[in-house]
Amino acid sequence: MEKHIVLLPGDGIGPEVTKAARQVLQAVADRYQHTFTFESHDIGGAAIDQHGTPLPDDTVQAAKKADAIFLGAVGGPKWDQLPGHMRPEKGLLGIRKQLGLFANLRPVQAFQQLLHASPLKKEVVENSDLLIVRELTGGLYFGQPSERRNNGQEVVDTLAYERHEIERIVDQAFQSARVRRKHLTSVDKANVLESSRMWREIVEEKKADYPDVTVEHMLVDAAAMKLVTNPSYFDVMVTENMFGDILSDEASVLTGSLGMLPSASLNEQSVGLYEPVHGSAPDIAGQNKANPIASILSTAMMLKHSFGMEEEAEQVQTAVTGVLQEGYHTADIDLKNGVKVSGSELAAKIVDQI
Amino acid sequence: MEKHIVLLPGDGIGPEVTKAARQVLQAVADRYQHTFTFESHDIGGAAIDQHGTPLPDDTVQAAKKADAIFLGAVGGPKWDQLPGHMRPEKGLLGIRKQLGLFANLRPVQAFQQLLHASPLKKEVVENSDLLIVRELTGGLYFGQPSERRNNGQEVVDTLAYERHEIERIVDQAFQSARVRRKHLTSVDKANVLESSRMWREIVEEKKADYPDVTVEHMLVDAAAMKLVTNPSYFDVMVTENMFGDILSDEASVLTGSLGMLPSASLNEQSVGLYEPVHGSAPDIAGQNKANPIASILSTAMMLKHSFGMEEEAEQVQTAVTGVLQEGYHTADIDLKNGVKVSGSELAAKIVDQI
Ligand SMILES: CC(C)[C@H](C(=O)O)[C@@H](O)C(=O)O
Ligand SMILES: CC(C)[C@H](C(=O)O)[C@@H](O)C(=O)O
Repeated sequence: MEKHIVLLPGDGIGPEVTKAARQVLQAVADRYQHTFTFESHDIGGAAIDQHGTPLPDDTVQAAKKADAIFLGAVGGPKWDQLPGHMRPEKGLLGIRKQLGLFANLRPVQAFQQLLHASPLKKEVVENSDLLIVRELTGGLYFGQPSERRNNGQEVVDTLAYERHEIERIVDQAFQSARVRRKHLTSVDKANVLESSRMWREIVEEKKADYPDVTVEHMLVDAAAMKLVTNPSYFDVMVTENMFGDILSDEASVLTGSLGMLPSASLNEQSVGLYEPVHGSAPDIAGQNKANPIASILSTAMMLKHSFGMEEEAEQVQTAVTGVLQEGYHTADIDLKNGVKVSGSELAAKIVDQI
Repeated sequence: MEKHIVLLPGDGIGPEVTKAARQVLQAVADRYQHTFTFESHDIGGAAIDQHGTPLPDDTVQAAKKADAIFLGAVGGPKWDQLPGHMRPEKGLLGIRKQLGLFANLRPVQAFQQLLHASPLKKEVVENSDLLIVRELTGGLYFGQPSERRNNGQEVVDTLAYERHEIERIVDQAFQSARVRRKHLTSVDKANVLESSRMWREIVEEKKADYPDVTVEHMLVDAAAMKLVTNPSYFDVMVTENMFGDILSDEASVLTGSLGMLPSASLNEQSVGLYEPVHGSAPDIAGQNKANPIASILSTAMMLKHSFGMEEEAEQVQTAVTGVLQEGYHTADIDLKNGVKVSGSELAAKIVDQI
């Protein structure tokens, strides 16, 4: 198959991990006789520096034509003092909205070798394997009005959803649950929010279409507790944008493997933007220390979700697990009897196994 | 001193723990020669059953005249199918709003004896001692509009704040930090929400008034992570209503002592509503199993925050610690070499030590 991939390296360690992702994709193309073409564009702070805007038109146009997009990371102290519309994050929010990337998939899995790095007790966290499906283009993030009023004496933000926006994310979550352990937890705040009551109704309506999936509702405060006390309880969780932001970050630190977590953001055509969950880590940028695994696992998600290449995706995952089992790791992780290597060395080892 | 206390036992284990709270307050009155008068009213499900509404006028009127209010717990499966305005939680939300209880104080402390019950590793959680100051009468909980639109095709909720609402909660938090370890973390989502940007500005303005307090800003997603990875990092956290709901519940499970956590909700006159953090636990209601310690520690907060009785509050806390050190506990906790007793027996032991 031929696929065109847009790379958005971004800031901090973004370029390093993007390079690793590209190498892995190239290795997959070579092994499975696909043709992947690549094209790089600026986003975030890098784009502010080069073009005076965190999301140049060029970048959007290129992304719209791509079969899939890989993003490294955006942001850093250098741009922290800029006004809101000129902040690196605006690039990320903008591309999500412009490409209609409504479904953010955030899998969290406990790696047996890394459990000792988890803040949780081993018996609490082991066997955790959950997927958070976060709505990504609606809710409080994009609702209007969002403004000061009355001479700066008041401020409002708006949590707004259209019915079809809730329906499509709920469908996505049911479909994800169906190919996993068939247990869906819909998270809301229906005892307070009207939007949550509508969300709950839609989940109830949809469940007839997925009789093989067990679904339950959980309040967001209860979910925030249960993620810590019993993370292995969950299979798939689905929730609105802001709740998803909080819960998926909370979930990301449970297993001690934040440097290993991938993510996918899909639109209705399954074009996706794939990015590691970790940030731009400006403190270690350019030192070849960054762990490329989150990015490499993000390419596995790309292969699977945007290209339908299940076998190729499996192969990437197997390569990662293999290299970990051999004891190779970057400085962020500490593996008993492991061999510490640089980011590029680790990526090369994974490429070798593909 | 003479103080008039309104008791709102509510549902589930609410009445049992309210009884324990009252006994402790009476013991304090006896020992320190105060006169505390008590008056009970219905709220939540109990009020729905008796009066057809979760917050009868009577209850509001009585609460408005009280020097302090103690609430047990509200809610239960019996009332879960009722329409929104008739749900037990509406009683709680209503009394918060009607009494202007804008400042919710949620301390979380690691009890050395209970660390083994924490989901976190001992070295992660020990020495944690934090206070979440949650704004309680604004934001998404009460903002208008909150409604369906366009024939049910759209829904909105509104996150609204007036400047003075943010100012007073920020002041409260600075004052709390001042009498603790002088470290304030203000939690927001300033990279997305206009309300958070205003919140951040107000914190920056206020900090000149509290030069002895170190203040920092943290994004809510980062805070949700750091609570799990490094809870002892925090001293006082201040945040808006919905973020506070999620973070304070997340924090409440960190130390393994959810059955021990008190809370206070104060208004501008320091009249307060005091309640245990745990819920109504319908599954064990009426069995004399409920742990009364969260309620008893809530009375300590009442003595301190509403009555200015520092010494009396200390005495209650000392009594609780003493009884725990002697190894007495209810069924929800498991103390090495401990003696399991009923809720009323545990309360009696604490009363004895006052
Ligand atoms: C950078 C920020 C706007 C973004 C978000 O809140 O969505 C980030 O936290 C994320 O989760 O991808
Ligand atoms: C019952 C519910 C409305 C309430 C809230 O969300 O404020 C509860 O979760 C709490 O934190 O006191």
